[in-house]
Amino acid sequence: MTDLVDDLLAGKHSALARVITKIENRAPGYREIVSELHQHTGDADVVGVTGSPGAGKSTLVDKVAAEYRDRGLTVGVIAIDPSSPYSGGAVLGDRIRMASNAGDMDVFFRSMSARGSLGGLSTATTDAVTALDAFGKDVIIVETVGAGQNEVDIVRTADTVAVLVPPGSGDDVQMLKAGILEIGDVFVVNKADLDGADRTVQQLREMLQGRSGAGKAGHHGAVATAEQGEAATEGTDDTDETWDPPIVETVANRSEGVEAFISVLEDHSEFLDRTGARERQARDRFAAEIRTLLREDANELVAGELARHGGIESAVDDVMARETDPYTVVDEVLAPLRECLDAENAP
Amino acid sequence: MTDLVDDLLAGKHSALARVITKIENRAPGYREIVSELHQHTGDADVVGVTGSPGAGKSTLVDKVAAEYRDRGLTVGVIAIDPSSPYSGGAVLGDRIRMASNAGDMDVFFRSMSARGSLGGLSTATTDAVTALDAFGKDVIIVETVGAGQNEVDIVRTADTVAVLVPPGSGDDVQMLKAGILEIGDVFVVNKADLDGADRTVQQLREMLQGRSGAGKAGHHGAVATAEQGEAATEGTDDTDETWDPPIVETVANRSEGVEAFISVLEDHSEFLDRTGARERQARDRFAAEIRTLLREDANELVAGELARHGGIESAVDDVMARETDPYTVVDEVLAPLRECLDAENAP
Repeated sequence: MTDLVDDLLAGKHSALARVITKIENRAPGYREIVSELHQHTGDADVVGVTGSPGAGKSTLVDKVAAEYRDRGLTVGVIAIDPSSPYSGGAVLGDRIRMASNAGDMDVFFRSMSARGSLGGLSTATTDAVTALDAFGKDVIIVETVGAGQNEVDIVRTADTVAVLVPPGSGDDVQMLKAGILEIGDVFVVNKADLDGADRTVQQLREMLQGRSGAGKAGHHGAVATAEQGEAATEGTDDTDETWDPPIVETVANRSEGVEAFISVLEDHSEFLDRTGARERQARDRFAAEIRTLLREDANELVAGELARHGGIESAVDDVMARETDPYTVVDEVLAPLRECLDAENAP
Repeated sequence: MTDLVDDLLAGKHSALARVITKIENRAPGYREIVSELHQHTGDADVVGVTGSPGAGKSTLVDKVAAEYRDRGLTVGVIAIDPSSPYSGGAVLGDRIRMASNAGDMDVFFRSMSARGSLGGLSTATTDAVTALDAFGKDVIIVETVGAGQNEVDIVRTADTVAVLVPPGSGDDVQMLKAGILEIGDVFVVNKADLDGADRTVQQLREMLQGRSGAGKAGHHGAVATAEQGEAATEGTDDTDETWDPPIVETVANRSEGVEAFISVLEDHSEFLDRTGARERQARDRFAAEIRTLLREDANELVAGELARHGGIESAVDDVMARETDPYTVVDEVLAPLRECLDAENAP
């Protein structure tokens, strides 16, 4: 186990791949590995890329990765498809993008699938980012399909979130209303050579103007705002600066607009450092992660207790027969835990 | 406390109202009250009514309640608005429907608001239904706005779910795709005198034909199907019968179609009894309720433990400083619980 961590820290891509596989599969020992890796993290720039299928995410991410590499930076890409039943390996092999980067280990690609619960996939993404960060990748790109709550949770792993919008269809801009508009730090109208691109840019601009009134800084909405207030009382006023999400037009398959996009990513990265938003976002993320892990582990503990009390079917039998009721069942299942904790915490 | 339960069981509407207020507010003692009431439940027909704002739910529910009352049945209505900040009392006072039923205690109206978490609102709805059922109401109507996951959870409290669709706008039928189509046992195109009603009925019919291929019986999808399989091996074949959701046209403000709607509700109620689906649905509901309560209580327990370990902010400080990591924090917080349970469950 520790050998695997040592190998990863020594820069062996095979060890990195094995660690991410353990993370994806929740294989025994993955928690200890992620725990050990955490102290080596904190240096990578993490960029999330999301958008509807067909928006051109893969192509853009390929070009961005290649450009970073040409600038001498190392890149890790994790592609997440919450709706896909494929395992990481299968999608990885299929992806046409590999042709442009094959054998180029400065760009490490990896896809992850919805193997466990979606909550688990969000946690697994965070853990995979930890692995890539500890490995020493300069830039980590988390790419995910879609615009639902699951995708929002997944891209929250990132410091900077880019939302891709395909031109032409008003539907796609409408879809943005469903939560994704709030998390975008930069919007990309890809395939900007297609009809309707101008109108899509215009629609996006109008929607973002509606949003910028809220004075959002960073993409962590309400929480960030609350902590800004706190920071202000500490005498810092740097957080007054807000970020107005730019709209970038690209034609990724012709590499047009890729440098402009990277330039915006760099601007946002500087903004995060200058305003302290990067640290606030990291704090929010760690707090959310701790709460999620606590919830998951606690649910597992009580599921075990329920099983020891005869299981759910037997409990339902008794509730149906009106011999007991759901609240009493739950109280009885949790009674040993409460008693233990009371004894533990007695003065 | 027991006085309140006795008064409710004796048929005092003031006690019923006070119990539901305790349930809505999660006031001390509400769990014990609901526990005591459970044994007196199981006789009511519970009907859920959902649909987008403006579909005419309140008007239809008013007319349906009045018609039931004319037939000599007692009715309880709980109106839920997950997005509303109003307290029950305020909305209750405002509702124009009261004019048609004021002072008529055979029809007991009550609205509940999104006071706590939405998960909590779903649990509170279940508890309020328990109170109305124990009180002895023959028919309980749970009315909720919208078509999101929260509404789906809320109407799951019902034996029979009616989905209202306003005519004309294709958008509304599209919206149904987002999960609500699967839970409807009857679809109501209200305001059927408006332009576009025929087209809406037609669109609905096409969508439902796509669905009926799945051979769904009852509105609990996959779980019900799995348990049907089990029932079949026990030698009963009554569960082969499936329910094809009818589409009813109403003009509620002119009382048109109300009797036809009630007739469909009765058909479905008979279907539930004849096929054993009512019992299966009740079992599924109790199982889900027990799991939800366990999860909520467990989360509360670990939140208390986290606070005793110094709280989330202190944990995040240490994680940011790379002195610890989220997994280690969680392991340390949960260690006392695990030790207790290990000791408890040792052979």
